[in-house]
Amino acid sequence: MTRGRARQIALFAAVLVALPSVALAGGSAGDPVASVALHLALILVAAKLAGDVAVRFGQPAVLGELVAGVVLGNLGVLGVHALEPMKTDASLDLLARLGVLLLLFEVGLESTVGEMLSVGVSSLLVATVGVLVPFGLGYAVGAWLVPSAGIYAHAFMGATLAATSVGITARVLRDLGRTKTKEARIILGAAVIDDVFGLVLLAVVTGLVGASNQGGTLSAPSIVAIVAKAAVFLVGALVVGRYASPRLFRAASRLQSSAVLVCVALAFCFGFAWLADRIGLAAIVGAFAAGLVLEDVHYQGYPRLGAQPIEALVQPIAALLVPVFFVLMGMRTDLASLAHGPVLLLALGLTIVAITGKVVSGLGVLGGGVDRLAVGLGMIPRGEVGLIFANVGLGLSFQGAPLFDQGTFSAIVVMIIVTTLLTPPALAWRFRKPR
Amino acid sequence: MTRGRARQIALFAAVLVALPSVALAGGSAGDPVASVALHLALILVAAKLAGDVAVRFGQPAVLGELVAGVVLGNLGVLGVHALEPMKTDASLDLLARLGVLLLLFEVGLESTVGEMLSVGVSSLLVATVGVLVPFGLGYAVGAWLVPSAGIYAHAFMGATLAATSVGITARVLRDLGRTKTKEARIILGAAVIDDVFGLVLLAVVTGLVGASNQGGTLSAPSIVAIVAKAAVFLVGALVVGRYASPRLFRAASRLQSSAVLVCVALAFCFGFAWLADRIGLAAIVGAFAAGLVLEDVHYQGYPRLGAQPIEALVQPIAALLVPVFFVLMGMRTDLASLAHGPVLLLALGLTIVAITGKVVSGLGVLGGGVDRLAVGLGMIPRGEVGLIFANVGLGLSFQGAPLFDQGTFSAIVVMIIVTTLLTPPALAWRFRKPR
Repeated sequence: MTRGRARQIALFAAVLVALPSVALAGGSAGDPVASVALHLALILVAAKLAGDVAVRFGQPAVLGELVAGVVLGNLGVLGVHALEPMKTDASLDLLARLGVLLLLFEVGLESTVGEMLSVGVSSLLVATVGVLVPFGLGYAVGAWLVPSAGIYAHAFMGATLAATSVGITARVLRDLGRTKTKEARIILGAAVIDDVFGLVLLAVVTGLVGASNQGGTLSAPSIVAIVAKAAVFLVGALVVGRYASPRLFRAASRLQSSAVLVCVALAFCFGFAWLADRIGLAAIVGAFAAGLVLEDVHYQGYPRLGAQPIEALVQPIAALLVPVFFVLMGMRTDLASLAHGPVLLLALGLTIVAITGKVVSGLGVLGGGVDRLAVGLGMIPRGEVGLIFANVGLGLSFQGAPLFDQGTFSAIVVMIIVTTLLTPPALAWRFRKPR
Repeated sequence: MTRGRARQIALFAAVLVALPSVALAGGSAGDPVASVALHLALILVAAKLAGDVAVRFGQPAVLGELVAGVVLGNLGVLGVHALEPMKTDASLDLLARLGVLLLLFEVGLESTVGEMLSVGVSSLLVATVGVLVPFGLGYAVGAWLVPSAGIYAHAFMGATLAATSVGITARVLRDLGRTKTKEARIILGAAVIDDVFGLVLLAVVTGLVGASNQGGTLSAPSIVAIVAKAAVFLVGALVVGRYASPRLFRAASRLQSSAVLVCVALAFCFGFAWLADRIGLAAIVGAFAAGLVLEDVHYQGYPRLGAQPIEALVQPIAALLVPVFFVLMGMRTDLASLAHGPVLLLALGLTIVAITGKVVSGLGVLGGGVDRLAVGLGMIPRGEVGLIFANVGLGLSFQGAPLFDQGTFSAIVVMIIVTTLLTPPALAWRFRKPR
């Protein structure tokens, strides 16, 4: 270990110890933005220092940000509770959600619709395998380890395992400089399709529970409706977006305001994110679709819009907001929940099938020259999508009782955490290995 | 009017009519970020279109943003209530507050401590005159038009008139490309000092009301303490900042993460904003001080930090957040309050002395070669600082009754609006006139 690296780590440790005491002294005197400003300053410093340490150990920077979050979020174990309020702070949560929109927008900007379509069939197969296998395995593990929970709880565990969080993988691919590889396009395409399938599965399971509570069954037409509107949105967004985008920028190039290009691009991203949410999809799918349809040729050649590409303009905004998402996700990881035996066993079982199920999905790739293991590894993280699913399940009740207890919920959360933390080093290892 | 301009205005009108119906169709299906995303998209589009119209009429873009906000916020008068929830949306409010921090940080980045000190005495005199004269005139107008309100209400009106909102002036100076002029430095310096004086005045008046309620008087030591900590913060921030800044960037240049420069600069800005708030000053004073101490020479020459100056990196973030502040400020302007005769008269009286009092402050400038009228005009807007003061007053009670009634509050708000809307065209007119 060099003197420089030792110094970095010492600096990092010092900051991690110093941060809570600074925050303890906090609490806004007047302006409500003050405490948010302090939290943002702490998150940015912790993210950059931890990212540096991760890079020095040959890992993607995002792993450092997640681990920094885990450390900061679990200082309560050490009796330091100063940062606890940050975990549930609504302002930071909003900034984190905007951050993940911008991340997916950035990733979308780096791909084109043509590139995505060229891997469309592989993505579709990967997504199909990556939903069906984890769903079946998750159902089986639930039935085996917690038979008393009932079939709907088992189905719900399966549905949570079917989720994929494209945010983590997208960020790792960016950190490794692999966004433009065929593997990256297959993973991102599959993650988008997976999101649609996962939401359909969630809607179906939730509908089944509701229908059973009322003694009825879920109607086939409503399942078809969920699938249809998702398909219409995705195809519609791409077609309308590709038609509208060049016209939008031509109109924008006539405006005599400053920073028109970045504002129009962001309005496009936010508008698509809103539309996706309206249609019942994840907002990040809309942000990704917006990035996908915006292509350099649509806005270059208008001198008034400036010479910088949209990517360069979005980057500083993402630099501010994206670390908030990852540090906060780490902070919300409650290490204490691992202390219970049966919970730990269920968590272990779910984690193993969560990983196996997604690695297997890589076999869906058609043709040669593609690293199927890399694709499978990229599908592993459940991240915020898994957390959203688990939260939906926690809110459901079956015949008057909650669908599953706090222990089962904790086990699911642990599975989400482990799959999320495991992906960065696994992908880094795989992409750096000579095939 | 050219065909292009007519087309722009038609487009603008169409969007203003279309926006509310789009928003009416809104309401998030799942992710709480979706409605924020929609609002941001609407604000960005409205801001750029209105900014374009303003520029075509020879006005600063910020005037367009404010007017767009006034129009959107008062659609309720036309029976269109779709956008009403935006006015009080906590998420947009947070983004607006972050926006004004970034605006002041940007303006601070464009000045240096040396430049500010070179106009220090002029700024101090302008601020002193600009606090004392409006306070006295505001007190007199209150005593004349609403004698029944009592001396503390009159004193409060005076205190509100003493405020200066540097945000508007800073933005207009940027729009006009005049940030580096001597007038700009005097105004910005005076606005910072004015902020300190204004907060002292607010604290003293509030303290007097509280002491009277308890039958006592305000202690001289507590007034001295308010003044002292403000002075210590400002001098301390500049001294410590200038010492720490080069060392901070030297350490940051060793970090192996991406986007280190913009993150460190933002952490610096947010940290100073928090500190200023902690000490009882406005957070924007801290952001401005942070920008002031960061100088190119502190971070240039480190290849790993990149070749772009901090200004260029902060600009896209400001492009997203700053329009939120100005559109929201416009939206919160309630035109309906002008419909009452006595309120209108009080509003008129307060507005006249608000303008006169600040224009007179320009006479505080020492030496030649400076446009005193431009300085005085730049001090006119009360903006968010005035609103904060008025809100504090609305929350106070004297001998069991509110300090002043809703009508007086409305008159104060109208004064704030008029002074805020008047400054952009007034400054544009003054800076373009040959002397």
